[in-house]
Amino acid sequence: MACKSSEVSAPEPSVAREVGDGAAPPAGTAGPVPPPPGITDARLSRQIAFLIEIDKLKSVLRHSNLVDLSRRENDAEHSWHLAMFSVVLAEYAAYEVDEARVLRMLLIHDLVEVYAGDTFIYDYAAAADQEERERAAAERLFPQLPDEQAAALRSLWNEFEQRQTPEARFARALDRVQPLLLNFHTQGSTWRPHKVTRADILRHRAIIEDGSPRLWEYIDSLLDEAVRRGYLGG
Amino acid sequence: MACKSSEVSAPEPSVAREVGDGAAPPAGTAGPVPPPPGITDARLSRQIAFLIEIDKLKSVLRHSNLVDLSRRENDAEHSWHLAMFSVVLAEYAAYEVDEARVLRMLLIHDLVEVYAGDTFIYDYAAAADQEERERAAAERLFPQLPDEQAAALRSLWNEFEQRQTPEARFARALDRVQPLLLNFHTQGSTWRPHKVTRADILRHRAIIEDGSPRLWEYIDSLLDEAVRRGYLGG
Repeated sequence: MACKSSEVSAPEPSVAREVGDGAAPPAGTAGPVPPPPGITDARLSRQIAFLIEIDKLKSVLRHSNLVDLSRRENDAEHSWHLAMFSVVLAEYAAYEVDEARVLRMLLIHDLVEVYAGDTFIYDYAAAADQEERERAAAERLFPQLPDEQAAALRSLWNEFEQRQTPEARFARALDRVQPLLLNFHTQGSTWRPHKVTRADILRHRAIIEDGSPRLWEYIDSLLDEAVRRGYLGG
Repeated sequence: MACKSSEVSAPEPSVAREVGDGAAPPAGTAGPVPPPPGITDARLSRQIAFLIEIDKLKSVLRHSNLVDLSRRENDAEHSWHLAMFSVVLAEYAAYEVDEARVLRMLLIHDLVEVYAGDTFIYDYAAAADQEERERAAAERLFPQLPDEQAAALRSLWNEFEQRQTPEARFARALDRVQPLLLNFHTQGSTWRPHKVTRADILRHRAIIEDGSPRLWEYIDSLLDEAVRRGYLGG
């Protein structure tokens, strides 16, 4: 199921007040804003417009909760967290990896969700058209950048999806590991309401094990413990 | 002024319901969780505990608003967004930079705020003890990692703060550029209530110009336009 930005919680009262305080008109929220008249560098303006457009990733909600259970995690935070996973856990990659490439891949891996929304890993109905929705989103998003950058990011995203290179294998493993850890450290807060079982997770075992056998070993023990504690179905 | 995590908005009803659905006890929110009994790899357990601890960065609020004005931005999203700025705008760095180093620096540059909180750039009272608060936070946070990783991240954070290397200069410039862009694209939503003027921003001109003269030129035009439109004091 796709998470629309309308699911984002209402602004705090203090923010609403601040925003309404000044003299300027309220902000419109539709699409990229054209560069101000004084700015003539078309390439840079286009790059900045892209960076403003992807601000929307901060409003795409995932099904994981924050560790303090205050709310659901969004895609932008998740992407940052994954990149930190790579910074800290790179020594466990199954193959030697180019660090900058892994980081770039993790930073952009969910970008298409600004248009395609998040697809819950255990929502098998939504998974049916996920590939098509995300391809359409990629075709809309990446060309907002200058051509060679659009091609480079699109290619990096394809590489992540195809999971063939050492970098993609490690990045994909981390993308599976992070939500499992968030779940364990919130007493199965997503697993329990969705009645997720160890068998459901084992379907994705290869993605983790292939990118990092050592991390799989850790996760395997963690899942045993999660079942023992009743966070996860046995 | 420091933003406490208590300022984070209340969970959505749907999340609260999901979280309360299962049989397991509610999650505690205090500190890192010890590894489950089956897990004996002390190094990896320590690294994972650190990654869980820094989940708190998602609850440290900044003074910038999202482009859709739905709420304030948090440090984790900001760090992701900055890393994306580097991915897209690296060609404008004043000096040749090591991309992985810039990305790592941007990913970790606000980590100490999990304990020190965010300090608003125009809050000159809070700025007085900012350095001391952040140093204390660094001494508490980084040693949660294995020694050599703690030293490496601490050193990378110092490098960012000291702004001497090409990577630190570019990273610091981006860290100044991003909130200015968010402000412009939200009609000065933070500038207006805080009565920020062009002169306030010009105090930080050197940080941007030194890391990227081209980006400073862009920002300079943007500020002219912001004053014309009434987003920013002249």
